[in-house]
Amino acid sequence: MSQSKPRHAPLPDFGVDGDRLLVGGIPVDRLADRVGMTPFYAYDRRLLGDRVGELRAALPQEVKLHYAVKANPMPAVVQHMAGLVDGFDVASGGELKTVLDTTMPTGEISFAGPGKSRDEIGRAVAAGIVINAESEAEIRAVADIGAAQGVTAKVAVRVNPDFELKTAGMQMSGGPKPFGIDAERMPQVLSSMAGLPIEFVGFHIFSGSQNLRAEAILEAQEKTIELAGDLASHAPAPVKTLNIGGGLGIPYFPGETRLDLTVVGRNLANLMPRAQSLMPGVEIVIELGRFLVGEAGVYVCRVVDRKESRGQVFLVTDGGLHHHLAASGNFGQVIRKNYPVAIGTRMRAPAEESVNVVGPLCTPLDVLSQKVDLPRADVGDLVVVFASGAYGLTASPTAFLGHPAPGEVLV
Amino acid sequence: MSQSKPRHAPLPDFGVDGDRLLVGGIPVDRLADRVGMTPFYAYDRRLLGDRVGELRAALPQEVKLHYAVKANPMPAVVQHMAGLVDGFDVASGGELKTVLDTTMPTGEISFAGPGKSRDEIGRAVAAGIVINAESEAEIRAVADIGAAQGVTAKVAVRVNPDFELKTAGMQMSGGPKPFGIDAERMPQVLSSMAGLPIEFVGFHIFSGSQNLRAEAILEAQEKTIELAGDLASHAPAPVKTLNIGGGLGIPYFPGETRLDLTVVGRNLANLMPRAQSLMPGVEIVIELGRFLVGEAGVYVCRVVDRKESRGQVFLVTDGGLHHHLAASGNFGQVIRKNYPVAIGTRMRAPAEESVNVVGPLCTPLDVLSQKVDLPRADVGDLVVVFASGAYGLTASPTAFLGHPAPGEVLV
Repeated sequence: MSQSKPRHAPLPDFGVDGDRLLVGGIPVDRLADRVGMTPFYAYDRRLLGDRVGELRAALPQEVKLHYAVKANPMPAVVQHMAGLVDGFDVASGGELKTVLDTTMPTGEISFAGPGKSRDEIGRAVAAGIVINAESEAEIRAVADIGAAQGVTAKVAVRVNPDFELKTAGMQMSGGPKPFGIDAERMPQVLSSMAGLPIEFVGFHIFSGSQNLRAEAILEAQEKTIELAGDLASHAPAPVKTLNIGGGLGIPYFPGETRLDLTVVGRNLANLMPRAQSLMPGVEIVIELGRFLVGEAGVYVCRVVDRKESRGQVFLVTDGGLHHHLAASGNFGQVIRKNYPVAIGTRMRAPAEESVNVVGPLCTPLDVLSQKVDLPRADVGDLVVVFASGAYGLTASPTAFLGHPAPGEVLV
Repeated sequence: MSQSKPRHAPLPDFGVDGDRLLVGGIPVDRLADRVGMTPFYAYDRRLLGDRVGELRAALPQEVKLHYAVKANPMPAVVQHMAGLVDGFDVASGGELKTVLDTTMPTGEISFAGPGKSRDEIGRAVAAGIVINAESEAEIRAVADIGAAQGVTAKVAVRVNPDFELKTAGMQMSGGPKPFGIDAERMPQVLSSMAGLPIEFVGFHIFSGSQNLRAEAILEAQEKTIELAGDLASHAPAPVKTLNIGGGLGIPYFPGETRLDLTVVGRNLANLMPRAQSLMPGVEIVIELGRFLVGEAGVYVCRVVDRKESRGQVFLVTDGGLHHHLAASGNFGQVIRKNYPVAIGTRMRAPAEESVNVVGPLCTPLDVLSQKVDLPRADVGDLVVVFASGAYGLTASPTAFLGHPAPGEVLV
């Protein structure tokens, strides 16, 4: 309980009613009764809207905001986002089906990802969405399939730039990569596209994700626009759309601070005239997943046993790694750190003990929070893991050890 | 292609027919046609039997061999194992259902794992299986539920020993742990059990898993038997069963060498008289998961694109992290290393290029093998990932990015 420990950044305001956390305005224990089970994921509709509002306020009005469905493909969330954002990006045929069931205009939907199957390409072409082609073979496949269907397929080319997004949680560009076509090969590829029966619509240049440093994002955005401008001169048609990716991070761990959106927005505004001079009429798209939905979601599980072992307290819950791999620290993380957690049924009580929150799996990997200071909790209390709205349920091995899948609600 | 690189240990002999790997005696491309899709997992019935045979030959005849279903809960595999091993250990109500559908006698089934729900305990008590109790609260819950059902529940107590399994891939004991009851508290707990309406059957002492060093296993087994012998004097009834866990590892990565089973078996044989003198009539159970099934399984995916980027070759396949998280290096591993892989349709061709085998996910984590020397492969070829029979499909986030689930067959 030392004050010198690094702390989590302040969370979005879910609200509290007495001792209980509110999610979607509903006390979390009542929400558990309504879901009819624990554990469950819950996403707060109001917070989704708030986040989009913050972005709209910070970004230049002419920048289009797309939602990268992979971050949270729950159909109800996607339906809700359809009313908030300007477009969707999907990463598979499965996600394509989900977005086609919304009112989003098909021209505002794009499909990126290496190794698209012919079946996926066929469905995308038939739907009339934009295919972000990841390789020369894929460009040819799209052209062939479009010709067979009698449809002129819309193609953007994904480019692997020769720079990287510095300090990104994940590097998606620079050096040899499976994503897109190397920038230096692009002039030749673009020339070869001129003869194909496709509609060239622009570029997709995505250099990394989960970045909390505004200056790194600014640098990547500037380089992205310059690169697209260079390539535009080789393109078979004017660049209508430039998807500059996302990369905006959210704070997960103690000591991380929130990204300054104002700085990102101001920089983008400054880049707009340059983009228009290089690519007249171009529409700039920013594509965000985690940043839109990550902090609007919680994972809720119930304490089923309280144990002490050699001086440490273990809250054994009915939730764990099988539902929330990222919070357990086992999804591509080198050093395990704690997500923000609370006892959702003891919000007014002071932190009075250091505990380990674990799950029911027979593996030492099944830890939701390690040595975290919390109010005293007993069997029946609800543990809430925050920052769980993105890459939570679908990024977890739900069949692991044969436990039931969690509930999932949008409230 | 340097000869000085560390190499993978020799694999079990799947067999080869011409250029094709055999799995269950079937050429892998024909098997893909039979499954009707790629990717798929395939487990080789003959290799499962061979592994059990090796163990039976090495271990003392009186040691009972249990299968820890969590390693691979595919119902067909579990049905097959029912005819090969002496008992099952399950980790959830889901796994309990699977084993109760086999011919395994219920007295030879045990259920371990922290935080068992009342529903799970109720089903286990009704089935008449042995419950490995993980806490004092759980012992009381079992007694209560048994009384309510009019059934005398069979209880073994899981002990958190005061020693660890050195060099284990996963430490399950020593220090503060959520598993079992600390050894030093056991005398008191055992005394308190005397008055409860349950049948005490023995102990479960599991100190770690995935160990390739025989001497560490020997040391843990010896300490386990001594600890159980000490605790036996406090027990409310004679110790009928002592589950000493498993811990036997399999080689996954370059430079790892196979565990010497002969040494493990000889040591166990030497310990048997001591175990009988401490606990007359005791039955020693060794519980193995990964060691029984891990090397009998392969994951097979198809090359859907072949790309070069800045001097590196990428084989983009239809399989990846979403089906096989462990092979991607993202399941609790600190440093990513390659599982053994082959081009299953080019088994006779020499390794002639260094390639990266990646999946269709839009994340740099989606790598099945990095800079591995393989025969030249093209679109349509099948990539085989070996050592995939344990903690493969069920330990993977199959819903990630909305791609189809893989097939799964026992052949």
